[in-house]
Amino acid sequence: MDVPSGYRACVVGLGSMGMGAALSCVKAGIPTCGIDLSEARRAEFLAAGAEAVAASAAEFEGAFDAMIVLVVTAAQARAVLLGGNGAAARIKTGGAVMVSCTQSAGDARALAADLEAMGVTMLDAPVSGGAAKAAAGEMTVMASGSDAAFAALRPVLEAVASKVYNIGPEIGQGATVKVIHQLLAGVHIAAGAEAMALAARAGIPLDKMYDVVTNAAGNSWMFENRMKHVVDGDYTPTSAVDIFVKDLGLVTETGRSLKFPLPLASTAFAMFQEASNMGHGGEDDSAVIKTFSGIELPARKEG
Amino acid sequence: MDVPSGYRACVVGLGSMGMGAALSCVKAGIPTCGIDLSEARRAEFLAAGAEAVAASAAEFEGAFDAMIVLVVTAAQARAVLLGGNGAAARIKTGGAVMVSCTQSAGDARALAADLEAMGVTMLDAPVSGGAAKAAAGEMTVMASGSDAAFAALRPVLEAVASKVYNIGPEIGQGATVKVIHQLLAGVHIAAGAEAMALAARAGIPLDKMYDVVTNAAGNSWMFENRMKHVVDGDYTPTSAVDIFVKDLGLVTETGRSLKFPLPLASTAFAMFQEASNMGHGGEDDSAVIKTFSGIELPARKEG
Repeated sequence: MDVPSGYRACVVGLGSMGMGAALSCVKAGIPTCGIDLSEARRAEFLAAGAEAVAASAAEFEGAFDAMIVLVVTAAQARAVLLGGNGAAARIKTGGAVMVSCTQSAGDARALAADLEAMGVTMLDAPVSGGAAKAAAGEMTVMASGSDAAFAALRPVLEAVASKVYNIGPEIGQGATVKVIHQLLAGVHIAAGAEAMALAARAGIPLDKMYDVVTNAAGNSWMFENRMKHVVDGDYTPTSAVDIFVKDLGLVTETGRSLKFPLPLASTAFAMFQEASNMGHGGEDDSAVIKTFSGIELPARKEG
Repeated sequence: MDVPSGYRACVVGLGSMGMGAALSCVKAGIPTCGIDLSEARRAEFLAAGAEAVAASAAEFEGAFDAMIVLVVTAAQARAVLLGGNGAAARIKTGGAVMVSCTQSAGDARALAADLEAMGVTMLDAPVSGGAAKAAAGEMTVMASGSDAAFAALRPVLEAVASKVYNIGPEIGQGATVKVIHQLLAGVHIAAGAEAMALAARAGIPLDKMYDVVTNAAGNSWMFENRMKHVVDGDYTPTSAVDIFVKDLGLVTETGRSLKFPLPLASTAFAMFQEASNMGHGGEDDSAVIKTFSGIELPARKEG
């Protein structure tokens, strides 16, 4: 790993993905600061080797070559970068910020334009892979932006990702690829739920149904990962129903902005919204199966 | 492989799956006859070691311990077994027939009842795996029926399948599991098409979109297999659009018979019907993407 002398990074948002990215930067020998509203998370990162931690960028000395924003929504990214004590002001001339929330192409473009007006270069860089991959420095990054943005962020991209896709030069392309990926992820979870619900209705043992599908051409990454939770009757969230209410909302917003019909994604969106309105928003996203009535689902096995 | 002395098998339907099954029986040392309406297919199987081949079971001497029916529809299975010169009459007392078309549980039950009245035991045994797996004797069989049916067919099951799921004792359970599997397969192809169509609309290079998805949690077996055809612009059928018009028809029929809503499968069914009505019924099932207007899809590369 070739880290330029004096190179400093700052990770904004120390959730499961952000903490993994921050620790990967430290492991790669990059002096890294961390920003989070949670004192516990700040303490955790400080103990793990942070240069400094704070609730806002205003508390840090100096400026950063690279900033990674790993918050949940576009509004949070905008607030933390451009709001009061905006972190964007702490990015060095020639430095760049990697914005990794799942957001619409329009939000990505608007944020990039406002950052550009401050002289800050943005990489539109959503990520995937989950907490375990993030902790291992093996996130997947689907990024778009200028060559200068990729170059400025190269040390942190190498530290946090095993795979960096360069989708193209235009801000918004990275965001769009992530949104389309989430279309598939969301529809696959909802389809898995629909299939398992039908199996329950037909009196097919769900563990056998799961076994057949995961060994055949009907399988998907999401079916294999999430329908196991249904078989086990365990809806402890890996990722919650409300995340897909948000993400499939972005998918349908993307379809609308391009005047493009999305029959399956719109249907899956309705299913996740219904699950949330039924009170399952904070449960694992596989709880979308609870939108089907007239079936008995496996109960959680006693530990 | 332990094949009882004098054990004889007959495979009905020498299409890509049936031919594979028939050759696997021969390879396992089971004297095997083959029935098909195509003279070319009969000649192919005869040259590969068939005991005999014919267009109808009436032309064979003696009777069979095991029969495997690998035709496409429930109506074909019924006609070949119970129609004029019905093949079911050539099954030995104590023998059994493995019926492997994709059909509704109701059709499977009706056929089993009529066979039972003739003293013939049926295994409700749909298969999956595709032509290559069939040729290698590695089909997946999702079967339901009596212990006697499984026992009578054991030598041929061992010859043709790498995995035999015993779903339960009731005829119709095997058919239902296959139908639910096809729900997932069909929705995943349609979802893949919807995602790739949206990518095309948004100006994302489809080869990059494919690369991202197949390395991330949005992947499915069908996305990886079928959307490659879209990237290559090659709609030479592996499995045709009209197969999913049939199979998703069975899915929605299953939902209706159980009074169970299937929002995603119903939507995917509409997409495949539209593709067929547009004239793409004989093309690869990935041609369901052609139901989306206002996009430019990759053209086939010149060989």
